[in-house]
Amino acid sequence: MQELKKQAAKQAASLVETGMVVGLGTGSTADFFIRELAQRIVNERLQIKAIATSKKSEVLARELGIEILDSFPQSKIDLTVDGADEIDPQINLIKGLGGALLMEKIVARHSRKQVIISDESKLVDKLGEKVVLPVEVVQFGYQATWRQLEQLGAKVVLRYQGPKGNKGTDPFVSDMGNFILDCNFGPMSDSFNLSKAIKNITGVIDHGLFINMADMAIVATRNGIKTLSR
Amino acid sequence: MQELKKQAAKQAASLVETGMVVGLGTGSTADFFIRELAQRIVNERLQIKAIATSKKSEVLARELGIEILDSFPQSKIDLTVDGADEIDPQINLIKGLGGALLMEKIVARHSRKQVIISDESKLVDKLGEKVVLPVEVVQFGYQATWRQLEQLGAKVVLRYQGPKGNKGTDPFVSDMGNFILDCNFGPMSDSFNLSKAIKNITGVIDHGLFINMADMAIVATRNGIKTLSR
Repeated sequence: MQELKKQAAKQAASLVETGMVVGLGTGSTADFFIRELAQRIVNERLQIKAIATSKKSEVLARELGIEILDSFPQSKIDLTVDGADEIDPQINLIKGLGGALLMEKIVARHSRKQVIISDESKLVDKLGEKVVLPVEVVQFGYQATWRQLEQLGAKVVLRYQGPKGNKGTDPFVSDMGNFILDCNFGPMSDSFNLSKAIKNITGVIDHGLFINMADMAIVATRNGIKTLSR
Repeated sequence: MQELKKQAAKQAASLVETGMVVGLGTGSTADFFIRELAQRIVNERLQIKAIATSKKSEVLARELGIEILDSFPQSKIDLTVDGADEIDPQINLIKGLGGALLMEKIVARHSRKQVIISDESKLVDKLGEKVVLPVEVVQFGYQATWRQLEQLGAKVVLRYQGPKGNKGTDPFVSDMGNFILDCNFGPMSDSFNLSKAIKNITGVIDHGLFINMADMAIVATRNGIKTLSR
């Protein structure tokens, strides 16, 4: 499967052209893309500039010789490639289990084209089937924001630091200095309106539902690469 | 007018009862309330706990001997008293010129009752007549968030540090670590829907429109105290 993910990343990297501003996602799948992109820069003298969606991706990209923009681009980002935690048939997504959802969403929102790379385990009929929805909230009053999320039907837990399943004693703090509330809504019947209702809560900065944002998903399956388009 | 503001603050402080959790606003008018409240605690042995909407208000309250809660209260705040920058006839507000809008809004949202004290210069027919609307945004990508706000019809400027009219060289950073974009929408014909549209923008944390939140305004006028209720 790792080999197939690499192929998916390679296919995504083939969409990049000289002169582009490229958005770099975050996570193990996005890392494959960053490596493939760096390879093309070396092999083909591709000239691009990039903007990263996390400190981690920025560090990796710089190490590999990818030029990172000093500030957010004035015009739209040409192409952003990122992973996802769940993908529905309309290429709506749940993202942000890695904790970088806010920067990922800001970059995706201002991209001409967003391409998702993943393996087939991320494909679902309805968002919320397998994973919780991360909601990034202001630290101040997060207990009250929590109750508002419960009123929308979620079981809510505060995300803690430390490796998966191994709760640290301190809450996880995002790159932007916020807490993450992991919200279990179960399978969502109307992710579009849920998305708006959550964003509208005072104290919520943003959340991991990416609705009507991705244009294409390149999915590694046991039978090879499968492409979904909107 | 200062004397009248003090009277309005005194009237608001008279609404506080022993056992209450009280939300403390931010700004020069809210400071009058904090002083009146501290006076009642000394004179009448009123027993209350408070939550502040800024570091500044917290420091003042502690100095005056008001007990501040360690963490956000689990149940609703009984009464919050705050100032406002504009008040329309339905007691909808623009707040946040002081830069504390996010904490103010979180506290107001979770209060049983919100009372505004002000002088008559803050009364307007339509919000946006006299003041700009402060919008608190994530630092990352604020340039792109700015463009989204322009698309809603605002003239936008980034708020800088330094005294009024005396631009510092660095952007103002809120208590929560964010930038403030001051948005001139002019008089608003539909502040309710504008409020939702702004909050829905990726990168916007919240903004200074307080719609359907305040229950009462105690207004100091040249002809004495005037009370508006919803």
